[in-house]
Amino acid sequence: MAKLYIIPIPISENPLEHVLPEFNHGIVKELRHFVVERIKTARQFLRKMDREFPIDASEFYELNKHEGYSFQMEALEALKNGQNVGLMSEAGYPGVADPGSEFVALAHRNNIEVIPLTGPSSLLLALAASGMNGQGFTFNGYLPKKDPERASKIKEINQTVIKTGYAQLFIETPYRNEMMLKDLISYCHHELMLTIAYDVTGEKQKIKTKTIGDWSRAPFKFDKTPCVFVLGN
Amino acid sequence: MAKLYIIPIPISENPLEHVLPEFNHGIVKELRHFVVERIKTARQFLRKMDREFPIDASEFYELNKHEGYSFQMEALEALKNGQNVGLMSEAGYPGVADPGSEFVALAHRNNIEVIPLTGPSSLLLALAASGMNGQGFTFNGYLPKKDPERASKIKEINQTVIKTGYAQLFIETPYRNEMMLKDLISYCHHELMLTIAYDVTGEKQKIKTKTIGDWSRAPFKFDKTPCVFVLGN
Repeated sequence: MAKLYIIPIPISENPLEHVLPEFNHGIVKELRHFVVERIKTARQFLRKMDREFPIDASEFYELNKHEGYSFQMEALEALKNGQNVGLMSEAGYPGVADPGSEFVALAHRNNIEVIPLTGPSSLLLALAASGMNGQGFTFNGYLPKKDPERASKIKEINQTVIKTGYAQLFIETPYRNEMMLKDLISYCHHELMLTIAYDVTGEKQKIKTKTIGDWSRAPFKFDKTPCVFVLGN
Repeated sequence: MAKLYIIPIPISENPLEHVLPEFNHGIVKELRHFVVERIKTARQFLRKMDREFPIDASEFYELNKHEGYSFQMEALEALKNGQNVGLMSEAGYPGVADPGSEFVALAHRNNIEVIPLTGPSSLLLALAASGMNGQGFTFNGYLPKKDPERASKIKEINQTVIKTGYAQLFIETPYRNEMMLKDLISYCHHELMLTIAYDVTGEKQKIKTKTIGDWSRAPFKFDKTPCVFVLGN
């Protein structure tokens, strides 16, 4: 029976061996069918992993395209015909704050074995390095962009931390990170802790936990680099 | 300035290169100070990683002991004196469903740089392989052991899935996994999806998503192997 491998992709410009186990290479180099977020970056990854990778002898099924669903059905056919398939997003862990879970669900409905390979997830690394409560936490994805929904979601998250003690993770489009910090300073209790996890695994990596009050006195210098936010107590 | 490295430990009996990047080895072999969940398993890991590791020339500060807090203060002193420190739990990712976050928080309060290394987390891998919603999810830790708290927590989680669509992750002491599935069948909507992620990264690994109704007709054969549960829609 064919298998669906979930293939993590580095989240920064590091050499692959910084964040990927050697084992992944052995699995990936045997695959010739890939469900991917974007063909171009998938090819770049395969070439970086192995210069000799037979890219032209491989099939790519892109999730992003309008024909996404029919590509997924083609990939499912490959699995049913006994071909192993790899699932890749552009960067990070497919299906966790990243596309791919729809195809994994389709695989389960068709009794395909699903095998996740180990690799970096900015959420997991940010949470562990935050010092916040890792025994109970919620990832909220992107918060609403506009008020009043945005303000009310931030206030809700603030209350949830106080009531449950669960760490609250969320992300933002990078150019809005500075505005996110301002909004958190406006709407959250200043005694709560906030982690800014900037460029996780990257060369400029900085993961810093301070009270909201402390952030308000010495804000973070953002640029267009992705960050993960963790709010806790 | 010294650094605190968060060191992930394999969650199954695999060779280390199955789940750990080569890079971790280079970092860990230079460390001589370790904050650990349990000294015995920390030593075993270091020896498995590198037979020549100078264990007798290393300091271990155990989190579990009654003197845990004073050990942490000693480890903090080492950091302040310019010694890099590694944080390890028994298996898995320190600080995420595992001990260690208290020490990370202490490090942040003292302006120590915290660097998370990549490695396996059964939660992350279970979620990605579940096919459930990875754009919003909650990890609930262990559910209460006894009724009425247990039943009411399961019903609450069931309602949260229906209301928010957020996947709900939780774990159970392995010998109670069978009872957990029975309780989920009793208290959850039978159309909801449940993933049982059994022996993640291990030789017997099985990650299966079905409706609660389907699980009720063909239950899972548990043994004493750890599982992660994911409830979603």
